[in-house]
Amino acid sequence: MTVDFQKLDRAFNPKVVVVIGDKQAEGYRWLRSLSTFHGEVYSVQIDPAEIPNIEALGIKNYLSLQDVPGEIDYIIVAVPRVVAPRILEDCIRRGAGGVSFFTSGFAETGTEEGIRLQEVMARMGREANLNLVGPNCMGIFNPRIGLRFTLDQEAGQPGRVGFIAQSGTHLSFMSTVGPLNGVNITKGVSYGNAIVLDSPDYLDYMLQDDETEIIGLYIEGVKDGRRFFRSLREAARKKPVLIWKGGETEEGTRATASHTASLAESPQVWQALIKQSGAIKVGNLEEMIDTLQGLLHFKRPRGDRVALVALSGGQSVIITDAFARAGLKVPDLTPESYRELGEFFNIIGGSYRNPFDVSPTMSALDNLTRILNILDRDDNIDSVALEVSSLFMFRRWEKDPTYLDTLADTLAEFKNRSSKPFFIVLVAGNREVTAVEARERFVAREIATFPSFRRAAEALERVVNYYGSREQGDT
Amino acid sequence: MTVDFQKLDRAFNPKVVVVIGDKQAEGYRWLRSLSTFHGEVYSVQIDPAEIPNIEALGIKNYLSLQDVPGEIDYIIVAVPRVVAPRILEDCIRRGAGGVSFFTSGFAETGTEEGIRLQEVMARMGREANLNLVGPNCMGIFNPRIGLRFTLDQEAGQPGRVGFIAQSGTHLSFMSTVGPLNGVNITKGVSYGNAIVLDSPDYLDYMLQDDETEIIGLYIEGVKDGRRFFRSLREAARKKPVLIWKGGETEEGTRATASHTASLAESPQVWQALIKQSGAIKVGNLEEMIDTLQGLLHFKRPRGDRVALVALSGGQSVIITDAFARAGLKVPDLTPESYRELGEFFNIIGGSYRNPFDVSPTMSALDNLTRILNILDRDDNIDSVALEVSSLFMFRRWEKDPTYLDTLADTLAEFKNRSSKPFFIVLVAGNREVTAVEARERFVAREIATFPSFRRAAEALERVVNYYGSREQGDT
Repeated sequence: MTVDFQKLDRAFNPKVVVVIGDKQAEGYRWLRSLSTFHGEVYSVQIDPAEIPNIEALGIKNYLSLQDVPGEIDYIIVAVPRVVAPRILEDCIRRGAGGVSFFTSGFAETGTEEGIRLQEVMARMGREANLNLVGPNCMGIFNPRIGLRFTLDQEAGQPGRVGFIAQSGTHLSFMSTVGPLNGVNITKGVSYGNAIVLDSPDYLDYMLQDDETEIIGLYIEGVKDGRRFFRSLREAARKKPVLIWKGGETEEGTRATASHTASLAESPQVWQALIKQSGAIKVGNLEEMIDTLQGLLHFKRPRGDRVALVALSGGQSVIITDAFARAGLKVPDLTPESYRELGEFFNIIGGSYRNPFDVSPTMSALDNLTRILNILDRDDNIDSVALEVSSLFMFRRWEKDPTYLDTLADTLAEFKNRSSKPFFIVLVAGNREVTAVEARERFVAREIATFPSFRRAAEALERVVNYYGSREQGDT
Repeated sequence: MTVDFQKLDRAFNPKVVVVIGDKQAEGYRWLRSLSTFHGEVYSVQIDPAEIPNIEALGIKNYLSLQDVPGEIDYIIVAVPRVVAPRILEDCIRRGAGGVSFFTSGFAETGTEEGIRLQEVMARMGREANLNLVGPNCMGIFNPRIGLRFTLDQEAGQPGRVGFIAQSGTHLSFMSTVGPLNGVNITKGVSYGNAIVLDSPDYLDYMLQDDETEIIGLYIEGVKDGRRFFRSLREAARKKPVLIWKGGETEEGTRATASHTASLAESPQVWQALIKQSGAIKVGNLEEMIDTLQGLLHFKRPRGDRVALVALSGGQSVIITDAFARAGLKVPDLTPESYRELGEFFNIIGGSYRNPFDVSPTMSALDNLTRILNILDRDDNIDSVALEVSSLFMFRRWEKDPTYLDTLADTLAEFKNRSSKPFFIVLVAGNREVTAVEARERFVAREIATFPSFRRAAEALERVVNYYGSREQGDT
């Protein structure tokens, strides 16, 4: 089938949504999650025990999809498997921008009946040229217009990342944990068994979507490898694309079969394919979020040489290890920088003076700004990192309730002014709650903030490498 | 020199501690940290501006070390570098179980004066056969008797891990972050420039110390590689020894020079040395704590086959990837187990049924116990892992304030009864504070609890591998 992107765009930006089959047993999760939705929500439910509860939520219920008035942009189907084909027929007859099936129990069960039903539905959807999302999925997420699938997702916040996930759990995590780390989604889709629309379609959609600057992908398998690769390469040419392949090991590949009924392809084939496509490979959710932070909030790096300032002390060796292990350089500064630093900052230490520890006295905000400015000007340095320990901040914050905000403002001012990537490594130590509160302030100011040296180093390396290989490609 | 372990044991378990040179500028950190100490604390300070403040802390001050009455077990020296040799002379004359020098500014500065002073002090200490700890260090930590060096360390809690750290920062982190993860220290030492006592001496001490079951080591370099290797191998033969080498990369090795004035040796030499010694190599603090959790709280594993139960759903693929990537197996259960599970648990899923998702209904505690019991009996399985998401717990906990404790009790009961390693993977998601509160409950019941699949898998792999290679060595 040829995907009608104008129609699909209606499903991603709906004005009218219909939920079929939401019920008490699910806590009316679909209808309640849509409490933030900017447009019209209707319910279709024939069970007389459910209808009063649905109406109590302030939602108009219809006994049939055909009765719903006006044009429908997006339909969410949460009916039992056995009636799914009949409901699909209704959807086809009625027409809609897109239809997603939360309903599961198809090929992923490995049962004859599940496989047969899935084939019936796939054929119906394709013949009708319907934008069918799923089944066995959470469907579409658009926080800007409050289109959610769980109550934990924040609505209202506009994002810059389009996220395509074969698994609902991963889109869930991404859309709830991402914002805590400064990564907000513009549009997301969980697409499960992908019997009509598949990952290449969503990639093509996100590529042409102007709101989406960066694309993230969690994928377990594809139906048509050649087509997927073409779409991936095309998308990666124009926007940064991050790909996390579930089933990266032989054992993991086997597990994909019972999760989303994906075809088993060898991890080696995937490795090669991703490498050639120009997409950025990540191995888990943490790496996905860390790398997105870098792409969203770093200035474009010119090289791999990092300067590291540590406020908590005694960490120079392990900081250097972490960055060197990730393939980055931690070089000496220029003599000019050391001379400037020496004017007001008595560095106890020999010739090797990056990373350097800043004593409590020197960490006064005006001194810190001077140090950061020197690093910003230094021609030996491409990126600037600042380590703050949660304990250090906690002690100051206890004495001065404005400390965290003042620190965050000072660093944000530097970050905006600097031409280099600047980021924070926030070590929680035994003050985990302070770390959460501090990160909130840094993230609100769009400063990339990582919980460990290792994670910061790996994110920076991916970003440096991404821009580095694009420059090579340009020449 | 030959180390007098009876004397050194007095320093690690002192009854009388003297602090020389604590002062306002340091916030009287030494004397205030000793507020929890079970024995006698005296101060030596000649500055008339400091003495009233010290006495206000309820601590008796003397103008000279020679005036302190009775036997002294442990002396902490925090005087400026320039008077350090004279104070060292006083300590030698007076005699003590051990003396640690917080004072820094020696060879780690790379200056002629620093190097000269360090040589003078090393010669004096060795000639007097003094148990000199440091300089440029935090000295000895013994929480059982309240011997601390920062106010953030908890006192009173007895531990099982002896921790030897060249860097004070790492002993600090270990002693404050470790307990949050169920890893408590019996005795610790931060030993800095190691001009008299060096890592082999502390290793020998921890080996003969009955309170210490497991030894952890953070090391940047050694003076005598042959001797270190001998001590390491000897210790690792009798107790699990974990070693984290700071300066694992060429660049990190360079950084050790200005931190603790360690000799640069190639990372490759260290790799080989550690491998031959039978010690367990870790790469950072997280891996140190994770592996210690496993060694302390796992039953001894018989093999590498893991069963994984996930409460939050949709994670099977990435769980499998994480464990397979760490070199572990995630096999099918026995047919007998599947039959038993089938009796009450309608698993939607095909032939591949490990890891498996437990639906909200099935996660009721009695069902969970039945599932865990089946895995405990299964002959295909060596370890049992349970994934709980913080969000899942948060939702239940909101409705039932006893939920977390009841869950923790149920799991602790299983853990104690089972003959296999059992652990929790606690995914914080967007409920980080709930995760902290839940972990506290699991840790209090000595259930190993990891924040991610990757970290759990790597810890288990290290423990399995440790016992596996010991068995090979036994035959």
